[in-house]
Parts: sequence; C-alpha cells; structure tokens
Amino acid sequence: MGPDPAVAAVRAAVRPGLGAGPVLVACSGGADSLALAAAVAFEAPRAGVPAGAVTVDHGLQAGSADRAAATAGLLRALGLDPVLVRRVEVGTAGGPEAAARDARYAALDEVAAAHGARIALAHTRDDQAETVLLGLGRGSGPRSLAGMAPVRGHLWRPLLDLPRTTTRAACAAQDLPVWDDPHNTDPAYTRVRVRTEVLPLLADVLGGGVDAALARTAAMLREDTEALDALAAAVPDPADCAATAELPAALRRRVLRRWLLDHGVPDLAAVHLQAVDALVVRWRGQGRVDLPGGAGVVRASGRLALQGHRTPPGALPGAPLSEEPHP
Amino acid sequence: MGPDPAVAAVRAAVRPGLGAGPVLVACSGGADSLALAAAVAFEAPRAGVPAGAVTVDHGLQAGSADRAAATAGLLRALGLDPVLVRRVEVGTAGGPEAAARDARYAALDEVAAAHGARIALAHTRDDQAETVLLGLGRGSGPRSLAGMAPVRGHLWRPLLDLPRTTTRAACAAQDLPVWDDPHNTDPAYTRVRVRTEVLPLLADVLGGGVDAALARTAAMLREDTEALDALAAAVPDPADCAATAELPAALRRRVLRRWLLDHGVPDLAAVHLQAVDALVVRWRGQGRVDLPGGAGVVRASGRLALQGHRTPPGALPGAPLSEEPHP
Repeated sequence: MGPDPAVAAVRAAVRPGLGAGPVLVACSGGADSLALAAAVAFEAPRAGVPAGAVTVDHGLQAGSADRAAATAGLLRALGLDPVLVRRVEVGTAGGPEAAARDARYAALDEVAAAHGARIALAHTRDDQAETVLLGLGRGSGPRSLAGMAPVRGHLWRPLLDLPRTTTRAACAAQDLPVWDDPHNTDPAYTRVRVRTEVLPLLADVLGGGVDAALARTAAMLREDTEALDALAAAVPDPADCAATAELPAALRRRVLRRWLLDHGVPDLAAVHLQAVDALVVRWRGQGRVDLPGGAGVVRASGRLALQGHRTPPGALPGAPLSEEPHP
Repeated sequence: MGPDPAVAAVRAAVRPGLGAGPVLVACSGGADSLALAAAVAFEAPRAGVPAGAVTVDHGLQAGSADRAAATAGLLRALGLDPVLVRRVEVGTAGGPEAAARDARYAALDEVAAAHGARIALAHTRDDQAETVLLGLGRGSGPRSLAGMAPVRGHLWRPLLDLPRTTTRAACAAQDLPVWDDPHNTDPAYTRVRVRTEVLPLLADVLGGGVDAALARTAAMLREDTEALDALAAAVPDPADCAATAELPAALRRRVLRRWLLDHGVPDLAAVHLQAVDALVVRWRGQGRVDLPGGAGVVRASGRLALQGHRTPPGALPGAPLSEEPHP
C-alpha cells in the first residue's frame, strides 16, 4: 500500500529540488511546515542529502520557548539532524507582521550561512495568493504582484503549487500534532483578513480556482520581471539622460530604480520614480526631485546626479542647489 | 468664476489628447459618458477638432430605442455633430456581458471606419480597477491584468485616471440628466459584484486607495507587456526550437503565443502554452500537443510544426501523426 495521496503529493513536491545540497527546514510547528519537514525527512536520506531543521522562537507569546522546544523534539523524532532553535528579538519597524518576518528571515539567513545549507520554507499556493493580493493593495507594480519565488538565493519554497488543504491532510494522515498559531486567525492582521474574507469572496464572485489563478499570474509576472530586470542590468550608464530616454518605459523604470538603489536610496514608491523619470523624458528645466529620507535627484548637463540632504533651514529659499554628486 | 472642479477635471483629462483628429464620443447616457461628451463638446471647438457622438441601442430592454433617441437629442443639444444611433443585435456567445460588449465594439469599429474618426470611451479609474480584478480571476497573466489602454488603435480612453465620483459630480454640476442603466446594479453580472462587493471589501482590508493602486499597477504592467511584446516581435523564427529555447521564459511565452496566433490558432490558456513551451525546452520525445479547436503542435527535426485536426476516429491508435505543416 502506498502512502496517503496528500503525503505523496508533498513528497513529490519536495523531491525534484532536493539534490541541490544540504537543507534546513524552517518549521513553526504549523501544518504547512510540519508536512514539509516530514516530507524532507523521508526524501532526503533517499537522495543522499543531509537535512535538518530550524524553529524560530519569536518570544511574542507566553510559553513560546516551550512551544519551540516541543517542535524541536518532534523534528528530531522525524529523523532531522541537526535541529536548531533560534530565539529572536522582534522589533516594531513596519508593524508587527513585518517586524516578526524581518527578525525571522535574519535568523534564517544566519543559520543558512553558518551551516552552508539552504532553507526550505513551507509557503503554499494559498500563501502565494494572499501575497499577490497584498501586493495588489500596495500598487507598487509587477514586482510586488510577482509573489514569492520558488528559489531565491538560499531560500527554497517547494510547496508553492500545493494548496493548504494538502498539507493539513498530510499531517492528519501521518498523525502529526499540528500547532495552530493563534496569530493565523487574528483579524488584526491584514493577511488574516485577506485569507478569511477577501479570498473567499473572490472565489464566490469570480468562480472557483482563484488561488490557482493568482499563483499562475504570479509565476508569469516573475518571468516578465526577471527578463526585464536582466535587460535593465545590461544598460551601462543610467545617468546619461539621452541614452536612458531612448529605452522603453518598462526598462527606464527599472534602470532608474537600480541606479537609485546602487546609490543607497531605499526602494521607492512609484510616484517618486515617475518624478525621476520625468527628469529624463519630460525635461523642461524642472528642479530637484526630493526623495524620502532627504536625498534628491537633479539633472545637470544632460546627466542625473544624486544629492544628499537639502541645504539647511538657514539657507535662503531659492538658493542654488549644490551640484556635487553623491559619493 | 471658473467651472466646477469636477467639470474642470474632466475637461483637463480630455484636452491633451484632443489634437489627434476627429472624434466620436461613445455615449450610453450614463454619468461617465455624459460627462465625457460634455467635456469633448466644450473642448473640441477650442482645439479646432470636429467632434460628434454615437449611442448604441443594444435592444435588450423595453424602450431602448426611445432611450437611445433621448440620449441622441441630449448629445445634439451639447453641440456635438454628427450624432449617430446604431442599433445592434446582441448574440449569446460568451455570456450576456461579453456578447453585448462584442456587438457594441463591432458597431463602434464600423462607425470609426466610416467617419475616419477616433472613438472616445468613458472608462474611469473605477472601471480599470474592476477590469484588473476580473483579469486576476482569469489567471491568464500579465496581459489580462494590464487592463484597458488609454489609446489603442482608434479607441481613446481619456478618463482612465479619474474616479467615477468625478464624472457624477461633473454631470450634477452641469445639470445633465444621467440615465442609470439597471444592468449596472444587477448582481447577476460579475462586474457588478466586483464593483459592489469585492472592491469595497478590498478597500476596507487593504486600506483606502485600492482603485488607484490597481490602476497604477495596470499602467506598469502595460509598459512591461509592451516592452516584452516588442522584443518578442523581433525574434525571426519562433519554430526553430534551439534558438527559441535560448530566450528567457517571458519572451518564449510571447514568441510562441504570437506564432500560434499568426497560424490562426485562437488565443490560448496558459496551460496549453506551457505544453507547447515544454516541446521547446523540455524535449524528451513527447508527442503532439492538442490545442482547443482541434489543431495541434508537434516537434519534428528540431522545429515546431502546426497540424490540423487529429486523424479521424477510424485511424489506428498510435499511427504516425501527419508531419504536414498547417497552411
């Protein structure tokens, strides 16, 4: 008798990507990551690949250390080795969801580097659909709609094509004790409301299969974004306005974004990028474009130049702006 | 005293694009198209551009001919000339919304050609947001998410950046008698449910400004799609598997779609395109890829070839497939 169909589906999703070397499964103890851990524990020895796990204690709930220890015990019982527990300090920047995510990914990056391993993440097709919708609300364009990549650096997400119902069924079939994080049903979190209110309504209005449609769209957008990013990366001198103005809008936007990131400007909203783009293609002598954080961009002698903070408050309004390029 | 701010906003949206020659406003008598008609009637004489209007009688509701005649009278009173009424026969293909749209656009195409005029359409930012969400549900990728183009062939949509509240306010400020099409509130239409249920919930969950975010995303996706379409169009021989396999996935998808369209295959779902793509990049001797409508694609001697319908049911299973290319 073969394994339960859900167990087989999770194992089949894991198998093709296992060969790429040592892996650590990031596991919260929830259904998705427990199903992933069990599948990796089963498949890795057959592929001759070392496989361990890491569980992150966010320290946000009473008893979180006990919870992490229990999850670690379960992961060891599955045969994963090493099994690491990392306690993180969650800050406040960007709100509770973003702060917890930032702290978690920082810990996973560190563990990956220390162990020379990839990190397997248990995001499912449902998570992908939620991510696409959250990106839609930001309106920051194709990049945020493209969702999560199956492979990005040392991060590996083998379950992006599986629905959450499959990971739950796989846990049930293997009698794995699933921990349901109360955060996952707390409507204070935007993602929870997307999951429990928006996606069900979309499925009702647009017809079934919305999760799959969103995931498919995300995959195509990722391809588009990768192709255009690669073309933009080949542009030698973004600051040369005449040359940059010749590019199609989709490339200009990427070339200018890249140029700003390379000069230490944090990722910008569409509205700022449009103003910088106007310096290139709709030049009529306009002044400095102020960017969040205090930097600015001017056009001088047909070239873009980055400036630091505005002249201090004591300076006369209308005084000429410094022409010094940013270091 | 200047005009009401809403009236000024609609006129300002119309002005930059008016210079491109004679225009006919497509007007249903609803708020959006009436506000557009009034703005064009005001701006066109100042720009020295001939401007008329056309109203389409879909014949779907009792009294629709009277309604069309009343709208035509109003458009003439605004000073537009000529004002045309076109009665269309609405079929059933693709459901009631698609059939009405197809019949309407066919009539508008005909009128545009007969009068050598562009057609001004009154789609607003709200329509754009609805279109993006409807495209999301189809999961057919960036192209359907890119929404409606401001200019496409002889179609011109000057109001895509304005919210519907502005067109309503402009009609009220000019005492224009707005006709509210009962179809616009009938929950039997998917678009109506997207407007009245999905978008308000999204705005509540993701925060305000969702309409604007969706419209911004659509504009960026359109740029991306245009840039990639132009690159794909420059590929000389899509059927050459070795050369096509070298392209990034985003270009391959477009090159193959274009090749199939050029050979008379109707636009395909993502799943079929993926199967054709697999013939190019994951070649392991697989057989013919069946396409909807009966055609199919095979790979032979390193080249893709389109075939007509499958061999008739009487033929032996496993019999060699014809190698004849499609005419």
